[in-house]
Amino acid sequence: MPAIDVVGLDGDDTLWHNETLFRDTQDRFRDLLAHSTDPERIDGRLLEVERRNLALFGYGVKGFTLSLIETAIDLTGGKVAAADIETILGWGRDMLAHPVELLPGVAEAVDELAERVRLIIVTKGDLWHQETKVARSGLTEVVDGVEIVSEKDELTYRSVLARHGISPDRFLMVGNSLRSDVLPVLAAGGHAAHVPFEITWELEHADADPEADGYHHLGSLGELAPLLDGLAVGD
Amino acid sequence: MPAIDVVGLDGDDTLWHNETLFRDTQDRFRDLLAHSTDPERIDGRLLEVERRNLALFGYGVKGFTLSLIETAIDLTGGKVAAADIETILGWGRDMLAHPVELLPGVAEAVDELAERVRLIIVTKGDLWHQETKVARSGLTEVVDGVEIVSEKDELTYRSVLARHGISPDRFLMVGNSLRSDVLPVLAAGGHAAHVPFEITWELEHADADPEADGYHHLGSLGELAPLLDGLAVGD
Repeated sequence: MPAIDVVGLDGDDTLWHNETLFRDTQDRFRDLLAHSTDPERIDGRLLEVERRNLALFGYGVKGFTLSLIETAIDLTGGKVAAADIETILGWGRDMLAHPVELLPGVAEAVDELAERVRLIIVTKGDLWHQETKVARSGLTEVVDGVEIVSEKDELTYRSVLARHGISPDRFLMVGNSLRSDVLPVLAAGGHAAHVPFEITWELEHADADPEADGYHHLGSLGELAPLLDGLAVGD
Repeated sequence: MPAIDVVGLDGDDTLWHNETLFRDTQDRFRDLLAHSTDPERIDGRLLEVERRNLALFGYGVKGFTLSLIETAIDLTGGKVAAADIETILGWGRDMLAHPVELLPGVAEAVDELAERVRLIIVTKGDLWHQETKVARSGLTEVVDGVEIVSEKDELTYRSVLARHGISPDRFLMVGNSLRSDVLPVLAAGGHAAHVPFEITWELEHADADPEADGYHHLGSLGELAPLLDGLAVGD
């Protein structure tokens, strides 16, 4: 195989914490509604509402906040207090204003990768918020490009690669989501490395296997530079 | 001056209806709260909330919906009924699902322009929703590119032009907002044409003058092709 000379880096839960923030908020939401219904019903209903709203809202905190409010009204039979809605609105603002916290070892791993390859952050979600997060990450100086996309499917990757003049067989995407960072990249003719994060949002779940599907499984982003070195000398 | 060979087209209220939808929703919002407070107080308070949230939310329907809910809670002193919040959530979904309606004469004007120049839609707002609107507009076949940006300032235009390899003095932006489509383009060394729409959102207001600031004022998008023809032969 040809050497990899461009690496795509996923943002949320690959470079920086994201799902943890959503989970923390969801924990608070469960506490807020604890007097009205049981926790499992809350999680299940919220997921249903999020799934139904996804085609209209896309990904991100604003849509999540709207879905929380909708779920709260629904689960309380319209009895939720305006003060509780106000609390939820505050969570949304807090999530948007939250500092970006890089995952352990990421800053060093990205520096090491930047010495070997061109780096492009390919991140999905709300344009305004993702731009803020990229800026706050402190990584803009090290990477060669940033692509904020609304969805990560095969077509998205094909157009990102075409726009940057990158041959798919020289491109490797690394990220925590099999559904968004691995499978569509393989479908587009590229390479992929999966670095699982401790928690995965239900709507990002996918089944795949490194051997059968042909991608790399890594324990951390720090393992990618050695992998690229190994690939460069042939395997 | 050199001939213009690329024209940037603004989306909302230049190619298709947008502000009308926001105004219609705001009218309904005023009716919903009519029993609690007077209309002027509602408009003023909503604008304050929107202005304060802008740095966190950016532009678009989801942030607008969150601001409506916040304003309703605030203006009713926390007494707004959950059913009313549910109504507001429904308006948000309706706005996102709303068909894209091209402004009168736009389809013909764009076809005519496409025969003369390269066309790029440069539209601001929510990535997911703007992509949907561009797709629904039916204009993707006619234009050469689509740029969805989070803010339209001088830096944005400079980077869009650089990305497409366009020399600013051969670029003309057309749109309804002096603040977003005209002044920052002039600052970036490009040309601009202003086609006012009947209503302008308060946060888009700007003062400018065609003579003093050096841009073109048009009555409709249909006047742009003749203008370009005039510029091409020298003026």
